[in-house]
Amino acid sequence: MSARLIDPHLISARQDRLRSQLEQAPFDSVLTLSAANFDYATGYRSVSATVHGISPLAALVSADELLVIGPVADSAPGFDAGLNPDDYLAYGRFYFESDNGSARASQLVDEHADYAQALAAAVTRLQLQHGRIGIDERACPMPLRHQLAELLPLVQFVDASDWLAGVRAIKLPGEVALLEQSARIVESAILAGIAAAGVGVTEAEIARVVTSAMVTADTEPRFVVVTSGPRSALADAYATNRALQPGDLLRFDVGGMYEGYWSDLGRTAVIGEPSAKQKSFYEAILVAEQAQFDMARPGVLAQDLFTRAVDVVEASGGPRPYRRQHCGHGIGLEVYESPIIRPDSPTPLEAGMTFCFETPYYELGWGGMMVEDTLVVTENGIRLLSDRGRDLTVVAA
Amino acid sequence: MSARLIDPHLISARQDRLRSQLEQAPFDSVLTLSAANFDYATGYRSVSATVHGISPLAALVSADELLVIGPVADSAPGFDAGLNPDDYLAYGRFYFESDNGSARASQLVDEHADYAQALAAAVTRLQLQHGRIGIDERACPMPLRHQLAELLPLVQFVDASDWLAGVRAIKLPGEVALLEQSARIVESAILAGIAAAGVGVTEAEIARVVTSAMVTADTEPRFVVVTSGPRSALADAYATNRALQPGDLLRFDVGGMYEGYWSDLGRTAVIGEPSAKQKSFYEAILVAEQAQFDMARPGVLAQDLFTRAVDVVEASGGPRPYRRQHCGHGIGLEVYESPIIRPDSPTPLEAGMTFCFETPYYELGWGGMMVEDTLVVTENGIRLLSDRGRDLTVVAA
Repeated sequence: MSARLIDPHLISARQDRLRSQLEQAPFDSVLTLSAANFDYATGYRSVSATVHGISPLAALVSADELLVIGPVADSAPGFDAGLNPDDYLAYGRFYFESDNGSARASQLVDEHADYAQALAAAVTRLQLQHGRIGIDERACPMPLRHQLAELLPLVQFVDASDWLAGVRAIKLPGEVALLEQSARIVESAILAGIAAAGVGVTEAEIARVVTSAMVTADTEPRFVVVTSGPRSALADAYATNRALQPGDLLRFDVGGMYEGYWSDLGRTAVIGEPSAKQKSFYEAILVAEQAQFDMARPGVLAQDLFTRAVDVVEASGGPRPYRRQHCGHGIGLEVYESPIIRPDSPTPLEAGMTFCFETPYYELGWGGMMVEDTLVVTENGIRLLSDRGRDLTVVAA
Repeated sequence: MSARLIDPHLISARQDRLRSQLEQAPFDSVLTLSAANFDYATGYRSVSATVHGISPLAALVSADELLVIGPVADSAPGFDAGLNPDDYLAYGRFYFESDNGSARASQLVDEHADYAQALAAAVTRLQLQHGRIGIDERACPMPLRHQLAELLPLVQFVDASDWLAGVRAIKLPGEVALLEQSARIVESAILAGIAAAGVGVTEAEIARVVTSAMVTADTEPRFVVVTSGPRSALADAYATNRALQPGDLLRFDVGGMYEGYWSDLGRTAVIGEPSAKQKSFYEAILVAEQAQFDMARPGVLAQDLFTRAVDVVEASGGPRPYRRQHCGHGIGLEVYESPIIRPDSPTPLEAGMTFCFETPYYELGWGGMMVEDTLVVTENGIRLLSDRGRDLTVVAA
């Protein structure tokens, strides 16, 4: 009945991967704090984390145990979603009543005084008080980190932020499938937005079409950048009531979350026949994105993909110089995951990594354009997870 | 053309309030870091803050100056939205090109190396290196705080988190109008969800109706809790594919943001004629919410409103004991603002404060119900900003 939407087999597979990596890690167990790392380890996403902006839940994962530490308020919905009540350590005050007081969630009020106390209890229960524990310190507020040091003076905490990013970087087939669904939903949403475009239509009206298509497909919209004319040069900007005019570029950069997995796609249209500059510049950024696709495979360095993209834009009639800080990024349970396709990233691609490649161009006073797609690295190349509408779409003026 | 959606007069009015409060503050200027405090001071909301989860912008406000510190990437969209280019101190690397290089946003690459350096430059520009500066420390990451202490050794930083919350607690008329719009949009969205309900319809289908209505009205959905039958007892839980059955309670708890201002409303329906217990318990929580409305006025203490709500639930045929950690909270640019309607909050209400009052009840195995509304405290009472569908709506089974 509780209809956990994400496949339980995928959750198990992620836990298996986490544990197999743990065998070679410089710590015996790992404590995940960030919303993305916690989701990876458990499959549970907290509504209250969305409301309050920081994730109040942690998972303590060892070779054969998985404890969840969270607020009382997340106990009942967590159990409904598949978390094990016997392995849930609760903190804080929230009242779930139950008929005869038998439901475990109704017995948890004030079980532990606060987050740190509950975390310490979990460590104690697994007898790790003298152990080495990996922790994603980048997601750990300083007060909490200080409390943990006081409550668990003999634990050696090791920053596992990069290690966890590495575990999550290689996607399982089920994750790739969700990332493709996430990308395809946004791809369709943008195409619906382009279909609604025309002279006199406003950015905001088009953004509503895109956003509606996303939520209808159970995708949480996170950024819906629909910019036109000179505003298309503004990079990350909200849609306004500006009405489209003949000659305008219409640039989309849209992302959201489907079952926890992010999308981030870019498309460009033009209202009426494109000018020579619009046409040649777009052709250059499209060819450059394609050059990244053609080059990407296991072993290729992120920085070499960056250089290739810049070189091809400049050599193909695009803007010169073509200046960018990056031409792509990993994507998964976070919108920007390592590696980033930057000039200074020596990280080699591996099969199972998922990326967004992009070659945007922003010229103030003139306009902006982009094409951004999602892909997975395969054994001998890549497979695109989005590919429709990549050309400069001409909207009848 | 740039169609800043929020009224520039409201931004000025908020700045005026901030400065008038600053005259009595124990510091001469204030540095706002949190997304909500930054929005209050400037009216600008960053898309990239949404993407990356933490706000990368700050405002330094003195009696007669307002400087904005932000990434290069936010410069062009920020100027388009009304920020003053001459008062923007940029950090980091992002490339906006411009025809002749004349656009200010194209000249900002690497103006300052990082956030802390740009903040220090702003303090120096206002000659505050020996001053007392308020800062919302709760929104300040520790590494940034350490950098500021090093770069500005003679500045006396004072935690202004509570002070800023106090400034924002009393809403201006324009803010109340936006909060009412935000509440009314969600109210209509929930009513549309109830209209779509019936035996066999799933929670997820109803959630899609609610969410679509929100995005169509330019509201960013943040939590759309649609739970039914036993799941209605789960408090903050996501909608699932559970289909409605005769006798089910159907509980909505929905919030989002309209122009930065939050909504948070609760409604309950029942599929078919309610049972005696459903009817009497709902009547009790509704009467208790009404008792809070009747009692609320300037000078009344938050804790007395809490006690009143609990007493009335118990005295009106509702659950006994009725146990809650709070029965309401302030609302504005954040979903939970102080004061919270808690048993231990001696804060008196003031005219211009805006609240959500709520009296939810969650019984595992049976169900959950709630009624939550938004209101503004007036000179001699309150005015409701939501009031439709507060009864237990009966959906034909």
